[in-house]
Amino acid sequence: MAARGLPTIRLTAVQHSDLICLATGVFSPLTGFVGRADYESILDAMRLADGTVFSIPVTLAVSSDDAKAVRGASTIALAEPGGAVVATMDVTEQFSYVKQREAAAIYRTTESAHPGVARLYGQGDVLLAGPITLIDRPTGEPFADFRRDPIETRRQFAERGWRRVVGFQTRNPVHRAHEYIQKAALEICDGLLLNPLVGETKDDDISAATRMASYQVLLEHYYPKGRVLLSVYPAAMRYAGPREAVFHAIARKNYGCTHFIVGRDHAGVGSYYGTYDAQKIFDEFQPGELGITPLFFEHTFFCRTCGSMASEKTCPHDPASRVTLSGTQVRTMLRSGQVPPPEFSRPEVAAVLIEGMRA
Amino acid sequence: MAARGLPTIRLTAVQHSDLICLATGVFSPLTGFVGRADYESILDAMRLADGTVFSIPVTLAVSSDDAKAVRGASTIALAEPGGAVVATMDVTEQFSYVKQREAAAIYRTTESAHPGVARLYGQGDVLLAGPITLIDRPTGEPFADFRRDPIETRRQFAERGWRRVVGFQTRNPVHRAHEYIQKAALEICDGLLLNPLVGETKDDDISAATRMASYQVLLEHYYPKGRVLLSVYPAAMRYAGPREAVFHAIARKNYGCTHFIVGRDHAGVGSYYGTYDAQKIFDEFQPGELGITPLFFEHTFFCRTCGSMASEKTCPHDPASRVTLSGTQVRTMLRSGQVPPPEFSRPEVAAVLIEGMRA
Repeated sequence: MAARGLPTIRLTAVQHSDLICLATGVFSPLTGFVGRADYESILDAMRLADGTVFSIPVTLAVSSDDAKAVRGASTIALAEPGGAVVATMDVTEQFSYVKQREAAAIYRTTESAHPGVARLYGQGDVLLAGPITLIDRPTGEPFADFRRDPIETRRQFAERGWRRVVGFQTRNPVHRAHEYIQKAALEICDGLLLNPLVGETKDDDISAATRMASYQVLLEHYYPKGRVLLSVYPAAMRYAGPREAVFHAIARKNYGCTHFIVGRDHAGVGSYYGTYDAQKIFDEFQPGELGITPLFFEHTFFCRTCGSMASEKTCPHDPASRVTLSGTQVRTMLRSGQVPPPEFSRPEVAAVLIEGMRA
Repeated sequence: MAARGLPTIRLTAVQHSDLICLATGVFSPLTGFVGRADYESILDAMRLADGTVFSIPVTLAVSSDDAKAVRGASTIALAEPGGAVVATMDVTEQFSYVKQREAAAIYRTTESAHPGVARLYGQGDVLLAGPITLIDRPTGEPFADFRRDPIETRRQFAERGWRRVVGFQTRNPVHRAHEYIQKAALEICDGLLLNPLVGETKDDDISAATRMASYQVLLEHYYPKGRVLLSVYPAAMRYAGPREAVFHAIARKNYGCTHFIVGRDHAGVGSYYGTYDAQKIFDEFQPGELGITPLFFEHTFFCRTCGSMASEKTCPHDPASRVTLSGTQVRTMLRSGQVPPPEFSRPEVAAVLIEGMRA
């Protein structure tokens, strides 16, 4: 094969997922790991060097030793974490960078307690840039039936006649609050792309398999079949809050979505970002420039006086009327086998989660 | 006053409401009754002669005798239906027109059974065009506290910090189906302009006063005060379906709305228009061209299995799970003093309607 004998870089799991996203158009218009001009421009202006909005630099960081080892090679091979070569890369640049500067620009903090910053600080000191060519796709991945490239989701949206499609990013189970938000958006769209991240995430003790099972039982019982597509989002979480909300929106545009749901503290972690920062950041673009319409939602809850789900925007009633549980409370209930109230979780979903946490 | 001694045209009630809308910017960018170039262009291309989208020709039709009587006058006076002069008009043109052609272009039918077409056929044979200058506003109108010109609604939106404002047109009581649609839209906006038409309409036996009282009781009990503005829409109904949906959207843009709700058979009457014609017509414009985003909704209902309001788009359940009543059924119930189920109407609203229909 073309990659035989080439100097090889072994990718981390995150780099491998970036490679797949680059190769399949999830990170379009990028076609490879970014070079210095785009890197600088993304950090400084949230745009590629040509002015196109792009909010997160997708980089290939390697150690100085690895950089030295491939210096001078115009083409290198990229191996997945297990060691098998899966792609080639035409190296256009090697360049150094300042991690603290990237942290401040992208994560809005230089604290290593931030998981995205910690990963950045832990990576190599040299960035390799250049277009990639995928040779081998991963096989035998979990949830294979729910893995679709952008070209495939776009084809399915077209086949279904969906002209307005709203994307929903999640890394958690879907309780009624998120069902309500999805359905409010679906009322003004033709279809919903439920697009969970199923790689390991730091913020939940519910396995990806259990979450996927919970999505399926929810869709089966409470959503019209013809209105939802459940598809896995293969990118890694950055926890970059506002910058990642824009990144998520761009990825969903690439999947063919016209609208994207941005909730409170989207892609946030800890208290690094203000509640609405991931919504406010979209003000920095001209209308139409992003190519996808963000839909901003508030925290929602069931209100007994309204007799429905609502938010502070749509419900004037006393907090005592409202069924609210913290994430910790729900996890504690589920872990002890207790079914949350039906105003909080669909019983079918709760049963799957309880079963999954027991296993 | 400036109008003394001028030849005078006495307006019909509809023409008078058009005059007020022209003078206060509801029909902006029009500043007077349209001339032939705009008239032809609206009929043929749904645009003014300069290319700006405009869907209904706002004309001043007079009899041939009246046209003759004012011929040669560069300025005329306009009197309200009671006879008092309320405006002047710089007459730029008198022109003839073909009613059947206007009917076909605007109403998509030439049948005189259509109430908009009937009004067109009944009006004068000559159109007077030219900019108008308002001298006197109507005083002592009902619902004075709820009459606000576009400049005033825009000021209030700005004061409240509403950047995304959704307009809702209605000529009926707001039952839970419409509350749900309004609130789904409000979830992605900052505020709601509830903008009922309170002139006499042909399709309800509930008085405007009763409807206004029902809106107030609904807002008081079920909407956060800071999120809704109740304001009267002073224009006359045309029942022009698709063309009027666009017209309604333009008027709401003028009030400062960024979004406008378009339901099934918006501004329709009888079976002249297809269920979705008033939504499909918006496809004829480029994104951004209209300056307001239409939000398209389906028929909605309470579903007992969902435990919430929903539509065919968001509920997969059997029709037997759904609480639905026809308009006729509801009116019959209310007229006989029967309260519709709480899944259909808020009890406070039903009480006002029953009381109003009894009076």
